[in-house]
Amino acid sequence: MNIKQIVEQSDTKAGKIFDLTIQFLIFVSLIMFSVSTIPDLSERSLQIFHITQIITVTIFSLEYLLRIFVADKKLAYIFSFYGVVDLLAILPFYLSSTVDLRSIRILRLFRLFRIFKVVRYSKAVNKYKAAFFEMKEELVLFSLATLFVIYIAAVGIYYFENEVQPENFKSVFHSLWWAVATLTTVGYGDVFPITIGGRLFTFLVLMIGLSIVAVPAGLLASALQNINKDKDKE
Amino acid sequence: MNIKQIVEQSDTKAGKIFDLTIQFLIFVSLIMFSVSTIPDLSERSLQIFHITQIITVTIFSLEYLLRIFVADKKLAYIFSFYGVVDLLAILPFYLSSTVDLRSIRILRLFRLFRIFKVVRYSKAVNKYKAAFFEMKEELVLFSLATLFVIYIAAVGIYYFENEVQPENFKSVFHSLWWAVATLTTVGYGDVFPITIGGRLFTFLVLMIGLSIVAVPAGLLASALQNINKDKDKE
Amino acid sequence: MNIKQIVEQSDTKAGKIFDLTIQFLIFVSLIMFSVSTIPDLSERSLQIFHITQIITVTIFSLEYLLRIFVADKKLAYIFSFYGVVDLLAILPFYLSSTVDLRSIRILRLFRLFRIFKVVRYSKAVNKYKAAFFEMKEELVLFSLATLFVIYIAAVGIYYFENEVQPENFKSVFHSLWWAVATLTTVGYGDVFPITIGGRLFTFLVLMIGLSIVAVPAGLLASALQNINKDKDKE
Amino acid sequence: MNIKQIVEQSDTKAGKIFDLTIQFLIFVSLIMFSVSTIPDLSERSLQIFHITQIITVTIFSLEYLLRIFVADKKLAYIFSFYGVVDLLAILPFYLSSTVDLRSIRILRLFRLFRIFKVVRYSKAVNKYKAAFFEMKEELVLFSLATLFVIYIAAVGIYYFENEVQPENFKSVFHSLWWAVATLTTVGYGDVFPITIGGRLFTFLVLMIGLSIVAVPAGLLASALQNINKDKDKE
Repeated sequence: MNIKQIVEQSDTKAGKIFDLTIQFLIFVSLIMFSVSTIPDLSERSLQIFHITQIITVTIFSLEYLLRIFVADKKLAYIFSFYGVVDLLAILPFYLSSTVDLRSIRILRLFRLFRIFKVVRYSKAVNKYKAAFFEMKEELVLFSLATLFVIYIAAVGIYYFENEVQPENFKSVFHSLWWAVATLTTVGYGDVFPITIGGRLFTFLVLMIGLSIVAVPAGLLASALQNINKDKDKE
Repeated sequence: MNIKQIVEQSDTKAGKIFDLTIQFLIFVSLIMFSVSTIPDLSERSLQIFHITQIITVTIFSLEYLLRIFVADKKLAYIFSFYGVVDLLAILPFYLSSTVDLRSIRILRLFRLFRIFKVVRYSKAVNKYKAAFFEMKEELVLFSLATLFVIYIAAVGIYYFENEVQPENFKSVFHSLWWAVATLTTVGYGDVFPITIGGRLFTFLVLMIGLSIVAVPAGLLASALQNINKDKDKE
Repeated sequence: MNIKQIVEQSDTKAGKIFDLTIQFLIFVSLIMFSVSTIPDLSERSLQIFHITQIITVTIFSLEYLLRIFVADKKLAYIFSFYGVVDLLAILPFYLSSTVDLRSIRILRLFRLFRIFKVVRYSKAVNKYKAAFFEMKEELVLFSLATLFVIYIAAVGIYYFENEVQPENFKSVFHSLWWAVATLTTVGYGDVFPITIGGRLFTFLVLMIGLSIVAVPAGLLASALQNINKDKDKE
Repeated sequence: MNIKQIVEQSDTKAGKIFDLTIQFLIFVSLIMFSVSTIPDLSERSLQIFHITQIITVTIFSLEYLLRIFVADKKLAYIFSFYGVVDLLAILPFYLSSTVDLRSIRILRLFRLFRIFKVVRYSKAVNKYKAAFFEMKEELVLFSLATLFVIYIAAVGIYYFENEVQPENFKSVFHSLWWAVATLTTVGYGDVFPITIGGRLFTFLVLMIGLSIVAVPAGLLASALQNINKDKDKE
C-alpha cells in the first residue's frame, strides 16, 4: 500500500519527492527535445541528448509500469487520459528503434505528450475546468459563431480581392487564412485587401466579428471570478 | 398535420432526421461552393460540383415549397427572415440559367445565404440575442463612438502624414483604412506613420481609442454571464 | 420664450426639427471636408464644396448667435464646452479669408470641432461618463501604468537592439514607437527585435504589459454593466 | 521628529513639497536619460546632461542618507524594496567614475531603477495589488498555461514550417518567437506560416490559445471592479 500512496498521492513526503522528480524529468526532457531541434549541433551534444533520453524514457517507463501496478483497476488506468498520455510519452522511443527511419520525425512529435503529464500535478486546472463547464454552452456557441464569421469573411474578401490579387486570394480556402489572421487581430501583413470594397468589407467584418471572436476570453474571466467569489462565501 | 410537425418542429424522430438532413446538405453545399472557387479545377470536379448543386438545390426547393405548404400564414412565412433566406439560397441557381453570364458572379454570392439557414436550428442563438438586447443601447453607443474615434484618427493622421507619405495617406478616406487597421489592432503594416507627430498622435489615439473599441466584447461577455446567472437562480 | 425652447430643448416638434437639421448639416459638412482632401478634384467639385461651406457656416453662425441670444447667462454659454466648440466650428472659415494662406491648413483642422457638436444630442454619452467616473481612479492608474510599462519597454529594447539595428532603435524615443506598436498589439512590423535578448525581453514585457494595457477596456465594460444593473433595479 | 515626518509622510505641507520635489527630479532625470540616448548630440547638450546628472544624483544621495538617518530600523530600510531601489538609482553614477568604461553601458541601465521610486507615492497601486492578490492563483495558472500554449505552438509550427522555411523556423527556440508574436496577436509579420498545415495549426492554436492568453486582463479588471464595489458598500 506504501508504493501506491507514493505514486498516486502527494501528501506524504515521499509522494512529494516522487512527483517533483517526475516533473523535473519532464521539464529536462522537453528542454532536451527543444535543444535537439537546433540545426548543426556537435556530435557530443547529440550524444548527451541520446543518453539523457535513454535515462528519462527508462524512468518514465518504470513510472508507467508502477502506475499500472498500483492501480486498483488496471485497465481503467491504461485507457484513462493520463494512462494514454503516459504511454504516448514513452512509445516513440521504443518505436523509433524498430520502425524505419522516415516516420521517426512524426513519432518525435509524440514525445511532446509528456507535457500533458504535468497537468496531473496542477490542482488549479480544476478551477479552469469548472469555469469552462459553467460557460460550456456559450463557449461552444461562440466557437461556432467564430467559425461562421471567419467563413463569411473569407467568402466576402474572395469576391472583392480575387480579381485584383489572384495570388493572395486564390480561392475561398486561401482567403480563410486572411480571415483568421485578421479576425484574431494578428494581422501579419502577408495578405490584406487593397480594393475599396475589400477594405470597407474588412471594416464591417471587424466591427461585427471582433465582438464575437473576443467574447470567449471575457466569458472565461468572469466565470473564473464567479467561482472565486463562491469559494470566498463558503 | 404530420408533415407540418416534421418540417417545423424537431421533437419527433422524423423531425430531427429532416433537420439534420437539411443541415448536412447546407454544409455539403457550402464546402462545394468553397472548393469550386479553387482555380484550374479538372473537368471532372466541375461536373461533380454541378451535379451536387442540382441535387441540393432541388432538395432546398422542395423544402421551400414544403415550408410554404405547411405554414398557417403562407405570406407571413414567405416574407419572414427565414422565408427570404430560404428563397435566396435557391434563387441564384434558377436565375443563372436564364440571366446572361456576367451577373452570375454576383449571383453566386447569394448562394451563401444558405448558411443563415443553419441559424434556425441553433437554439443557443437566443441567449446571444438576449445578451445583445440587454446591452443594445450601450452597443449602439460604442459602435457610434468607434466610428467617431476612427474618423477623428483618420483626419488627424491625414494632417500628420499626408505631406510625407502622399501615396499612403492620399485623402481622409485613404487614412480611414489606416485608422481601421490600427484601432482594431490588426496592424497589417501596409500603412503606418513615420513622422514624429504622426506617431505621437497614433499613441494618443490608441490610448483613448482602445478603451472604446474593445468595450463591446466585454459588454457582451458580462451580459451573457448575467443571463447565465439568472437561469441558475430559477 | 418660444425660440429658447426650440434651440435648447428637443421635446417639442420644432425643437426636434431644429436639432436634426443641425446634426444633418454637421454630417454634410464633415463629408464635404473629407471629400475635399481627395487630391486632383475637378474645378466643379471644389466650387460645390465652397458653396456648401458658405451655407453651412452661415447656418452654424446663426445657430451660434441664437444660442447666445437665448442663453440666460450669455457669458457662461460662450465659455462653456459647447460654446467654445460652436465657435471653433465656424472660426476657421472667417479667419481663412483674412489671415495669410500658410496657416489655413492648420485652421482647417479646427473645422473638425463640429463633430463635437453632435455629442450634445447623444444622451447615452451620460452613461459612458458615469461608467468613466465610477472607474476614474483605476483608469488614471492604468493609464499611468501603461505609460510606465511603455517607457520601461522602450529603454529595455533600446539596450538590446540599438547595436544591431541602429536605424530602427536609434534612441529611447525611437524605441518608444516600437513599444507603443507592440504593447497595443498593433504590431505594424516596421520595427521588431532580432536579437535573442530583445526577443526574450519582448516576451516578458508582453506577458506583464498586456495584463496592464488591456485592463481599462475591461473596467469600462464592467462599470457600464453595473450601471445598467442598477437601472434595472429601480 | 520633524525631518522624519517630512521624509516619510506626506500629510504636512513640507512633506508634500519634499515628495513633489523628488518626483519632479526623477521625472527630469528620466527625460535626461532618454534624451542622452539620441545619437550625435552636440557637445553642449552632453555638458548639460552631465551637470543635471550631478545635481540629481547629489539630491538623490542626500535623500538616501536622509531616509537611512530617519528610519527607526536602519538596516530594515536599506534592505527593503525601496531601500534597494534608492541605492540602485544612485550607484551607477558613482561606479561609472571608478569602474572601467566597458561596463558603463549596463550600469546606465541601473539608473532606470529611479522610476520605481515614483511607485512609493502612488497610493492607488495598493488597489492593483489587492486585485492582483485576490486573483493570484488564477493569474499564476494562466501565466503557466500561456507558457504551455506558447511552447506547444512553437513545437507544432516547427514541424509544419521547418522544412519549407528553414531560416525562420530553424529550431523550436526560433519558433518560440513566432508563437509569442502570434498568440499575443502582435503579429509583426517577420515570420508567418506558409504551408497549409502550418496555417491550419495556427488557426487551431489561436482559437484555443486566445481564450487562455487574453484571460488575465479580464480577471484583473473584474477583481478591480469587485474591490471598488466592496468599498462603495462600506
